[in-house]
Amino acid sequence: MAIYTRRSIAELERFFRTNLINSVTGFKSVALIGTVSEAGQENLAIFSQIIHVGANPPLLGILFRPDKVERHTLENVRSTQTFTVNHIRPGFVKQAHHTAARWEVSEFAACNLAPEYKDEFPSPFVGEALVKMGLKFVEEQQLINETILVVGEVQQLYVPEDCLGDDGFVDLENAQSVTCSGLDSYHTTQKIVRLSYAKPDQPLKEIN
Amino acid sequence: MAIYTRRSIAELERFFRTNLINSVTGFKSVALIGTVSEAGQENLAIFSQIIHVGANPPLLGILFRPDKVERHTLENVRSTQTFTVNHIRPGFVKQAHHTAARWEVSEFAACNLAPEYKDEFPSPFVGEALVKMGLKFVEEQQLINETILVVGEVQQLYVPEDCLGDDGFVDLENAQSVTCSGLDSYHTTQKIVRLSYAKPDQPLKEIN
Repeated sequence: MAIYTRRSIAELERFFRTNLINSVTGFKSVALIGTVSEAGQENLAIFSQIIHVGANPPLLGILFRPDKVERHTLENVRSTQTFTVNHIRPGFVKQAHHTAARWEVSEFAACNLAPEYKDEFPSPFVGEALVKMGLKFVEEQQLINETILVVGEVQQLYVPEDCLGDDGFVDLENAQSVTCSGLDSYHTTQKIVRLSYAKPDQPLKEIN
Repeated sequence: MAIYTRRSIAELERFFRTNLINSVTGFKSVALIGTVSEAGQENLAIFSQIIHVGANPPLLGILFRPDKVERHTLENVRSTQTFTVNHIRPGFVKQAHHTAARWEVSEFAACNLAPEYKDEFPSPFVGEALVKMGLKFVEEQQLINETILVVGEVQQLYVPEDCLGDDGFVDLENAQSVTCSGLDSYHTTQKIVRLSYAKPDQPLKEIN
């Protein structure tokens, strides 16, 4: 077993530490965030710091780094108050990863992904994505390390019919949504089990 | 394609909406959080709202619901200022899920998981977990829907040697860490690809 302490982590080589700490959060949600500037310049960026905040109202949180990389997205979210979140499928994982580069042009064009405007929502969706949503900015909070948590409310939501269960559960495997680990590793998934609501002293049932 | 709007989401049956909105965040980090009360009562609870906050200092965020279910964990974090985060493996997914029930006794005993104390860290780890860390409370912030984001700093970190790459990347597949989707579905993963740092106009390379 490799053992690290707060002190030994601080003394690690920078890239080693970044990979290590980004890995140990576990498998992460990963999605492409689509925005447009007030001047009409489209932007697309990959994010893996995405968190469910609440179902009613339907809220989602995204953590932005304080540095330059994602600044366009954050600026656009602040100025237009809207953004889209688009799940990534294996067929465009490389294109999605490449949006992280510092392109001077739109990442849609640079990475060969199709901007899609739907139902009058002002921010661009990713045409290639199956599960996608349009969100309205609700609040932002700065955390201790100057990262910024943006909370958005789902305004529009698109899910393939054949991935949607009678109970509202979305079969993300069937929708081909990928997960990521660390900074740069992408994965498909295989279901182990879906389990019933947990109650004390009652055995769990498998949900099919 | 199933299409929902802010309005139609608000009108959904409650459990359908909860499943739907919990699903569309994508695959999530999931882990067992171990704490102990000031009186010495151990607690273990499953969380899937976990987010990487930063690598230097090594920070991780966990979102707590405002309701009763996770209150013991949050109370213990506030009073003892420490907690552990333990990755879940397929062999104890059912036990991990069952910690979500409202047990009157310690979830370690109720769900047959072994509390483990290591290197003088005050909160209990999960003996069955391979990837695990001990964290110190750093800050908490309340979000708009009264959920509470707790940020913790990694004090101790344990990773199996054979899952740790030369560059600090942890092979979570090899470590058997699972991911979850929605409220109740657990998944193993299969690597698609690991990709090099993204630069404009340079093709991405696969990292082995």
